[in-house]
Amino acid sequence: MPVNYATPAPEQLLPVAGVRLGTAEAEIRKKNRRDLTLIELDPGCTVAGVFTQNRFCAAPVQLCREHLAGGNEIRALVINTGIANAGTGEPGRRTASATCEAVGQMLGIGAQQVLPFSTGVILEPLPVDRLVAALPAARGDLKAANWHAAAHAIMTTDTIAKAASRIVAVDGKKVAISGMSKGAGMIRPNMATMLGFVATDAGIAQPLLDKLVKEAADLSFNCITVDGDTSTNDSFVMIASGQSGAVFTAETDAGWAEVRAAIIAVAVELAQAIVRDGEGATKFITVAVEGGRDVEECRKVGYAIGHSPLVKTAFFASDPNLGRILAAVGYAGIGDLDVDGVRVWLGDVLVAEQGGRAAAYCEADGARVMAEAEIVIRVDLGRGDAAATVYTCDFSYDYVKINADYRS
Amino acid sequence: MPVNYATPAPEQLLPVAGVRLGTAEAEIRKKNRRDLTLIELDPGCTVAGVFTQNRFCAAPVQLCREHLAGGNEIRALVINTGIANAGTGEPGRRTASATCEAVGQMLGIGAQQVLPFSTGVILEPLPVDRLVAALPAARGDLKAANWHAAAHAIMTTDTIAKAASRIVAVDGKKVAISGMSKGAGMIRPNMATMLGFVATDAGIAQPLLDKLVKEAADLSFNCITVDGDTSTNDSFVMIASGQSGAVFTAETDAGWAEVRAAIIAVAVELAQAIVRDGEGATKFITVAVEGGRDVEECRKVGYAIGHSPLVKTAFFASDPNLGRILAAVGYAGIGDLDVDGVRVWLGDVLVAEQGGRAAAYCEADGARVMAEAEIVIRVDLGRGDAAATVYTCDFSYDYVKINADYRS
Repeated sequence: MPVNYATPAPEQLLPVAGVRLGTAEAEIRKKNRRDLTLIELDPGCTVAGVFTQNRFCAAPVQLCREHLAGGNEIRALVINTGIANAGTGEPGRRTASATCEAVGQMLGIGAQQVLPFSTGVILEPLPVDRLVAALPAARGDLKAANWHAAAHAIMTTDTIAKAASRIVAVDGKKVAISGMSKGAGMIRPNMATMLGFVATDAGIAQPLLDKLVKEAADLSFNCITVDGDTSTNDSFVMIASGQSGAVFTAETDAGWAEVRAAIIAVAVELAQAIVRDGEGATKFITVAVEGGRDVEECRKVGYAIGHSPLVKTAFFASDPNLGRILAAVGYAGIGDLDVDGVRVWLGDVLVAEQGGRAAAYCEADGARVMAEAEIVIRVDLGRGDAAATVYTCDFSYDYVKINADYRS
Repeated sequence: MPVNYATPAPEQLLPVAGVRLGTAEAEIRKKNRRDLTLIELDPGCTVAGVFTQNRFCAAPVQLCREHLAGGNEIRALVINTGIANAGTGEPGRRTASATCEAVGQMLGIGAQQVLPFSTGVILEPLPVDRLVAALPAARGDLKAANWHAAAHAIMTTDTIAKAASRIVAVDGKKVAISGMSKGAGMIRPNMATMLGFVATDAGIAQPLLDKLVKEAADLSFNCITVDGDTSTNDSFVMIASGQSGAVFTAETDAGWAEVRAAIIAVAVELAQAIVRDGEGATKFITVAVEGGRDVEECRKVGYAIGHSPLVKTAFFASDPNLGRILAAVGYAGIGDLDVDGVRVWLGDVLVAEQGGRAAAYCEADGARVMAEAEIVIRVDLGRGDAAATVYTCDFSYDYVKINADYRS
């Protein structure tokens, strides 16, 4: 059960002019489920993406990087769930290429105009014949109003589909933004997460979009962790069709600040939805670290807390065993940290200061905050002005169950 | 239930001449258990230690560092379980000092000749009055044959006491080595683990002992992880009484190689015992990484695998979901790793090569190895001659249960 998250209803997800989505059953790994998604883009879209830093990055990630770096006009995205096509070596690269070839042939475009994405089990071969055979059905299903169905078709161990929309008025024109994401385990994105897509009918010049996709990733998918495992397939892609008539080429353009903020808000919502649906999650935890010398050390502390199995199991138990948080701050890797200057809050309760428990702290206050489903841990490192936030979830029996059972 | 480990019988643990141990019930946190251990050393012992790198290191760790650095002749160690006296600020330092004062007064030695150790819950005050009140009982219990009882008295969430002995003949003299350790959770030592003690009746000159304690820690406690959480209280202390008559002042001394090897073997056995008794452990996993450019990158890969909740839950399930190991190798932080050169074995089975699944690999072979209680993962990075080994355990329902219940 996700923590305070429900998939928006189909009618709440806005069509984005110039972007059509279709799904089909390809039997990639299981029968009787839509596991193939095709996204067709009109000519004139700009597309940008960021991808996993995992050295064992998947074959489709390698092709995405090549096709985007080549300056090709991207006209289609193809996404399968079930098999990640990662750890598949040269044969994996061939099946990803064959997928792009097949999509290109079907749509009358070049293979290098297609971006492929895969998610699912690593180290197993992608059944490319079944994928290709299902492409015409996905093409027959293409429509702009299909975000809801597509968000379902890209799920793996997700318990709920994740999608979001915003609308922004710019100079009399309405700009629509829609996005979807998937992921519940192997979540510690190090550029973006597996998988996030945001499209808008604003026009956004390529340099502006390239910058925005990185900014948005840093404020959303790059701030979340479920289990500390950086996936082989993380991909976050942004599409701008321009068909709303609102077009942006510079950061000083009127309306850009609003559109930029709305796009980032969609990315944050999609990223947080992944944590809310984290494997076995019962709590949504925000770790806000401030007072650091630089953002990097704040992130180190945030992730040390967010990855600690001891902290995460204590949250599952609603047990204010807060020494575990202090221990994580202490081993986060800041070699010259003065622990007497560190302050830690649980919600609105000051827990620790001057190297120890705060004088006014009492266990009942801690227990009250721990009982909530949404909890903020605030850490002030007391040595500078930098800040960073990490979103994570607790660690439950169900996490073990899900990951001990997955594949079987 | 520990994985293939049983506490040696009392008569298998050798007395070390010059070292006497006594235990008592101090009701530090719970009644009706021996939770206080006193170790008295004859004059003439050399003592060396290594301690946690956690910035929130416990008050007793701070005092141990001071007392050792001051060049004092150490004559006593005092160890309590139940409360860690970490995250306790200035009041915590005062209770640790008061403990040393009380031991010193009782034994007629200086407070700075006492090393204090605490383990248990962080962020709670140490009931120093109850500790001090129980010291005479511990003193009354002092004897050289008490290693078995002391190993029990230092336990926290351990399910089994951990101790080991070796005997080495040197030039007609018998050198006895005995040690004990504790720890099951918050285990990712970054100098030593909470707590390890090894004593010998060999005489070892201070510079030699200072070097040996670091070497032994690097080959034992610094190679283990249960949950990736570096404790605030990790301490590993080595004691050499010289009462066997075998005395070493240089690495070239006859017999030193044998004594050194035996001491390291005891440390490795005690460190591995902690993993075998890791919280909820059902498997003992050795991650042997070779072919690295340096030891540091081999350790990074070893810990990435050893800390991955996805890898650890797959081992719990005996599921050869080996893509998770590849993913961990990929995100371990070697930026220029050529994944096509990496090879991975599970036991004797080659699992992955050339960036993907090995041609000859079949799932039945992987499943056969995964079903065992002791498993070796071997990773050849294919880029150098360095190697490192990490010992860890799997991740089970019981890990969550133990840590969600601890304190309550």
